[in-house]
Amino acid sequence: MKIALGQMNVQSACCEENFAQMKEMVEAAKKANADIIAFPEMCISGYLLEDKWLDDEYCTYIHSFNERVKALSNGIGIIFGNLYYEPILSIKTGRDGRKSRFNTVLFAYDQKWVKKENQVLNGIHVKHLNPDYRIFDDSRYFLSGIEIAQRAKTENLISPFLFTKEGHTYRIGLEVCEDLWSQDYSIDVTDCYVKQNVDFIVNVSASCWTLNKEQSRHKKVREHTQILHNNMPPFLYVNACGMQNSGKNIVMFDGGSCVYDSQGECVYALNDHFERELAFYDFKSIREKVKSDDKLLEALTKSIYEIDKQMFRSSLKWIIGLSGGIDSSINAALLVKALGKERVIGYNMASAYNSLTTKNNARLLAEALGIEIREGSIEMLDDASIKTIQNYGYNENYSSLVYENIQARIRGHLLSTFASIEGGVIINNANKVEVALGYCTLYGDAIGAMSPLGDLTKVQCFALARSLNRYFEKEVISQTLIPEIVEDEIHWEMPPSAELKEAQLDPMKWYYHDEIVRMLSEYPSAQIEKFMECFLDGSIYETDMGKWIHYYHLEKGDAFIQDLEWLLKTIANAVFKRIQMPPIVLVSRGAYGSDYREAQLGFVQSDKYKHLKAEILKIR
Amino acid sequence: MKIALGQMNVQSACCEENFAQMKEMVEAAKKANADIIAFPEMCISGYLLEDKWLDDEYCTYIHSFNERVKALSNGIGIIFGNLYYEPILSIKTGRDGRKSRFNTVLFAYDQKWVKKENQVLNGIHVKHLNPDYRIFDDSRYFLSGIEIAQRAKTENLISPFLFTKEGHTYRIGLEVCEDLWSQDYSIDVTDCYVKQNVDFIVNVSASCWTLNKEQSRHKKVREHTQILHNNMPPFLYVNACGMQNSGKNIVMFDGGSCVYDSQGECVYALNDHFERELAFYDFKSIREKVKSDDKLLEALTKSIYEIDKQMFRSSLKWIIGLSGGIDSSINAALLVKALGKERVIGYNMASAYNSLTTKNNARLLAEALGIEIREGSIEMLDDASIKTIQNYGYNENYSSLVYENIQARIRGHLLSTFASIEGGVIINNANKVEVALGYCTLYGDAIGAMSPLGDLTKVQCFALARSLNRYFEKEVISQTLIPEIVEDEIHWEMPPSAELKEAQLDPMKWYYHDEIVRMLSEYPSAQIEKFMECFLDGSIYETDMGKWIHYYHLEKGDAFIQDLEWLLKTIANAVFKRIQMPPIVLVSRGAYGSDYREAQLGFVQSDKYKHLKAEILKIR
Repeated sequence: MKIALGQMNVQSACCEENFAQMKEMVEAAKKANADIIAFPEMCISGYLLEDKWLDDEYCTYIHSFNERVKALSNGIGIIFGNLYYEPILSIKTGRDGRKSRFNTVLFAYDQKWVKKENQVLNGIHVKHLNPDYRIFDDSRYFLSGIEIAQRAKTENLISPFLFTKEGHTYRIGLEVCEDLWSQDYSIDVTDCYVKQNVDFIVNVSASCWTLNKEQSRHKKVREHTQILHNNMPPFLYVNACGMQNSGKNIVMFDGGSCVYDSQGECVYALNDHFERELAFYDFKSIREKVKSDDKLLEALTKSIYEIDKQMFRSSLKWIIGLSGGIDSSINAALLVKALGKERVIGYNMASAYNSLTTKNNARLLAEALGIEIREGSIEMLDDASIKTIQNYGYNENYSSLVYENIQARIRGHLLSTFASIEGGVIINNANKVEVALGYCTLYGDAIGAMSPLGDLTKVQCFALARSLNRYFEKEVISQTLIPEIVEDEIHWEMPPSAELKEAQLDPMKWYYHDEIVRMLSEYPSAQIEKFMECFLDGSIYETDMGKWIHYYHLEKGDAFIQDLEWLLKTIANAVFKRIQMPPIVLVSRGAYGSDYREAQLGFVQSDKYKHLKAEILKIR
Repeated sequence: MKIALGQMNVQSACCEENFAQMKEMVEAAKKANADIIAFPEMCISGYLLEDKWLDDEYCTYIHSFNERVKALSNGIGIIFGNLYYEPILSIKTGRDGRKSRFNTVLFAYDQKWVKKENQVLNGIHVKHLNPDYRIFDDSRYFLSGIEIAQRAKTENLISPFLFTKEGHTYRIGLEVCEDLWSQDYSIDVTDCYVKQNVDFIVNVSASCWTLNKEQSRHKKVREHTQILHNNMPPFLYVNACGMQNSGKNIVMFDGGSCVYDSQGECVYALNDHFERELAFYDFKSIREKVKSDDKLLEALTKSIYEIDKQMFRSSLKWIIGLSGGIDSSINAALLVKALGKERVIGYNMASAYNSLTTKNNARLLAEALGIEIREGSIEMLDDASIKTIQNYGYNENYSSLVYENIQARIRGHLLSTFASIEGGVIINNANKVEVALGYCTLYGDAIGAMSPLGDLTKVQCFALARSLNRYFEKEVISQTLIPEIVEDEIHWEMPPSAELKEAQLDPMKWYYHDEIVRMLSEYPSAQIEKFMECFLDGSIYETDMGKWIHYYHLEKGDAFIQDLEWLLKTIANAVFKRIQMPPIVLVSRGAYGSDYREAQLGFVQSDKYKHLKAEILKIR
């Protein structure tokens, strides 16, 4: 038995292109004498269509590919994830009252649907476990196998597929993505198959990449094998690669398809570098994972490459404001790595507050990357702004912040103008700490077609800058912008500054606030209260955070609370800005956007918060 | 038996304030000798908290109010919707692996939880039917009663509450909102209670308002009674009023609590004008609904009032750009109606392309409303923009669109500056057709804190303008801006124009495109193909749309398709802009934002679309 694992690059709403890709892989698999080929979840339409799923005629169209794929199955079994859009067990409507949609894995062979042992729903397994967390909204769009069983008042629908070739019948379990992650559901799909002694299980997935997620999957499979005393049948995981978007987020799929053995060890691995691949597993071969030097760097590069290809058809210019700071330097380097230097134009837009050093940094960066840079000043527009608002009766006794925002918006205005002249799109330079705090000006620097760094803390950006310098084998991003930690002190030549007024430095307590922002968005359940408890009982000083509390002189209760409450309030109020910010590339376990979703609620405190605050204020 | 219906104004994440409101109503109900008082779904915390629901400590805090409400129940039964955040039947985790949350209705009396007939979960009914459509994401946050029953392997949990007072025991069915809307679920909660012969049913709701929604609810209740041959027990519906937000949408709750009799007739009605009310039903009294003159006008006024109160604490200035056009005129009038004239400042920002008439219209509007208006020009900034981009090497051979966007962004920049000087917020003037088509400039006119008209077609705006003139009893909004239809022709003195270049008129085919935009967003399932079929078989000419096809000379296949495909492509590409636009007040059955959710997919065509297009092109 030889199985082809078809790790496709699935593009959302590009059915014909995705089908063409499948067809190519099927041909190649036939040539290699594979018995079966398996493709990812929703490999025809893509997974993240959002409310396009509600379009009846488009769903009919997606469904029509089921027959077209079946037609390719002469001499080869084809396992693939796709929408099923006909009634199943007479269930015609979903919970929204619309025609019911099913997220399924289908199995065709010799132009027939492969029969199941219980003869119910031959050729089809309906996804049983519907994830409704993070970016996933399966219950919004699909009726689960569990719901079908309930509404049709039938026993569960999980039964082996019987694949007969050359006289031998293989009993195969098929499942879809979340079906593996059963710990908090009423049914365990994998166990159901194992109990029925299947020969092997194929899991078709559209499992989005987040930093270090693969570890959790390995662990999950091992948990299953441990329950089974290392008697798990071979478990084949076929994932998509590429990029899909959910509106507010850019979501990457890393591939990483692989085979687990009876002990839950990964014995055969495809690339997890976001690349399309076709590989053949014969239940004997072993292929180790090719380690990535820097998966984050790969993910971000690929995200830009894919967005450019899918949304902008790989032709336009990318417009970037180069302040000479670290974030824009990183983005410029990412753009060049992803698209080549010809596709990028940098703009330096100086005011009286921009130091010669940052201006030089911007120029040196552009030279090192070989990109075009255009330099100029915002002073004429600055003056015109001041004079115009004077004509509206406002003279100059307004706050410094008003003037800072004017400068930022002029830059946003200029970049937008450059983009429309060049027919290009703007890249947004915010990092996650800025996004969290709303430390940016709406319609000023909070603009652009995508934000590659919007889910990375500043500390992660430092590491990324070093990676990029290694990749380019030279100091593309100036060392002066990257801090070093020496004896618990942060050292850098050029600490971050928006340069919107004299001697301005960013108000963030780097490393310390980075970590709090990360905690709050990745683990939204009560982390702040836990953090406060650690401060109160002193255990905080056994962690890295203790170091930063000393560094920033927050040991006393009032200093600690004043800083923390400023941070929490600022983050809460910045929802107002985040609603209008560009799509962010999802990297962490909680990216702002469709992953971590927010209403405008203001600064909200639990009882425990108030109690802990009162206790902490007693520390003098 | 006398029941108090507590139609509260529930504010999101304002637990103490909401609890204080309940307490007041409980006191009043006790004074009026009510036996029971009922409050809406999630009346402590609000319903639309989005991922704040994932905050463990905040959920614990919300849950803690259950005991505080119980403590008020001396001598009166209190029915109220709130989060239950302790394990139920030993179920500790939800499908996201986090501690499980339950959306429940609770019933306390004399400081005890009211017992149920089956003695399971005394005092508590868990919402059984989880809506996961439109703005609702219940499965993301709550485990349903259905899931509990499944995981705990128990029979269904629906059993009457036994309320004993003065020797008499009433058997009462309690349900939460969607529990009534059972047609597409595996369980019918209302029927379960009816089969158990309850004395009456109380449904606690947080049912968001959309135009004409009340009709659907009346119909739904009547369907139940018909099945029961008009033997339905009294059905009491208690809804919230006020405003909650979901990030991208501002969601209104109209109240409209009421009692249905055995025939499903509404016999006792509270106001549905978005207003708090406490009323008493004694199973005899009859109270008809007070008809609203114009519910849309009420909804929009209240939306502004509530946002101002909840998000901005009713003190700052509202900044509005007054072009002299109809949309900004409507918004200015709405602001004054909601907040009073002192809270509003209008700005006219003229260029060479603005006619004297529109400038005058702006001034006359401001005078009629009594608001401050500041007038000036954008020409200095215009010049400075041109000169600055020249300094960047761009001379003037760019397209007219570049220059149009420059003007729009300068206005956005100025309004933002005025807002920061005044400490105010900007109102966004877009209507739904503009939002759909992206007929606006990002960071230009597509800015602001909220968009009151973003879910209204232009045609709906015309009607709203007339309503406002009636309300103010004078021509606040110039008649010259409101068209009249005479003999199938549109007549107006001042057709809509962005006034960004000479003799520019909006490219929209008013009335015709309005209707297509409405169809697409409110009924996302295959309306376009149905519309094309009507065109193809000629039945379109039996509808209003036929009139507009003649008016706009779209009778021939190529003209029809050219226009339609332009519209569809433009709408698809404008997702890019909508991602970054301000929150829209939800009015229709499909508001852009959290209601109708979009990924960037480009222009997507079904097979049927392609086929119909080919057929239509043959019509010459």
